[in-house]
Amino acid sequence: MAHAVVEYTDNLGPEACIPELLEKLGKKFGDSGGVFPVGGIRVRAICLTEYFVADGQGDDAFVNVTVLMGAGRTAEFKAKFFGEMFEIVKDHFAWLFERRGLALTLYVNEADEAGSFKHNNLHARLKARS
Amino acid sequence: MAHAVVEYTDNLGPEACIPELLEKLGKKFGDSGGVFPVGGIRVRAICLTEYFVADGQGDDAFVNVTVLMGAGRTAEFKAKFFGEMFEIVKDHFAWLFERRGLALTLYVNEADEAGSFKHNNLHARLKARS
Amino acid sequence: MAHAVVEYTDNLGPEACIPELLEKLGKKFGDSGGVFPVGGIRVRAICLTEYFVADGQGDDAFVNVTVLMGAGRTAEFKAKFFGEMFEIVKDHFAWLFERRGLALTLYVNEADEAGSFKHNNLHARLKARS
Repeated sequence: MAHAVVEYTDNLGPEACIPELLEKLGKKFGDSGGVFPVGGIRVRAICLTEYFVADGQGDDAFVNVTVLMGAGRTAEFKAKFFGEMFEIVKDHFAWLFERRGLALTLYVNEADEAGSFKHNNLHARLKARS
Repeated sequence: MAHAVVEYTDNLGPEACIPELLEKLGKKFGDSGGVFPVGGIRVRAICLTEYFVADGQGDDAFVNVTVLMGAGRTAEFKAKFFGEMFEIVKDHFAWLFERRGLALTLYVNEADEAGSFKHNNLHARLKARS
Repeated sequence: MAHAVVEYTDNLGPEACIPELLEKLGKKFGDSGGVFPVGGIRVRAICLTEYFVADGQGDDAFVNVTVLMGAGRTAEFKAKFFGEMFEIVKDHFAWLFERRGLALTLYVNEADEAGSFKHNNLHARLKARS
């Protein structure tokens, strides 16, 4: 499992290119040397229309990425992999970051195996496709 | 407290019957022998319109249920109860699962009592109703 | 960092005054004696249109606030500060609470520093503004 939720404020406008960002994040998960099976990748966005950022005085924007994955990866792997993923986020928004108030964050959470339930035909379908 | 958030991709279409699923999950919480008081049940859905699933090549769909409840239930109860709840989710989507790329997940989280604040008139209103 | 997500059911109607609530919560974070830097404040709302509350029989409503902040604040600070924040929520909805089925909750979560990545020009912009 490799879940990511991208919350973004709608004042970013179409320049945020969210579908492209989702694809970049999904492909990064897929490019993990098998740590994250492709069939378990689920990246999605939520567009925020009501928000209060910083002091509420500027037209400040933010993007917040929340990752959820199974426990068990090493601290080294996590620091490296999600550091790289965050660089992707920073690169994606570099142009906007130079031009407007913008805060980018990425948080990594781990799911407790005992409280995880799964049923998935994507792994089999991907195998059939390839 | 018995919270559940059902995220679902909009490519599932009306066949996903989300209102019916929410009712099934809410009633399952209510049918817990008093473990989850009815006045604390809050099941909701979020429809996803932007996402990247698996390799992004198919029209793959997913449904992700996130449960939040107070800590303190036994591991045995949780395995049994949420195993049954996940069977409800699987049954609900069985027809679609046979016909399309679909991933179903359910994750159970527990809230720290020290960081939980509540104010609720539903318990009293339910009592008055019955 | 001081994140809050306010989920609310749409049956509350315009009387919920959500933008005003977001401003109150944002200003409460800002009024923390420097514990929460203003540049890290990000309060947002998600309007829920599909839900099943309590026994599903009434037109019951709910508001759920989820806070995310960095770890390290004392238990005393958290009990006091978020107790006050929850009073703001209760005051905001007091009129509606007297008149309809309504459940209010606030949960506080802490982010693991090792899994947190940030890039933010708001602190610098706030300094330039003042």
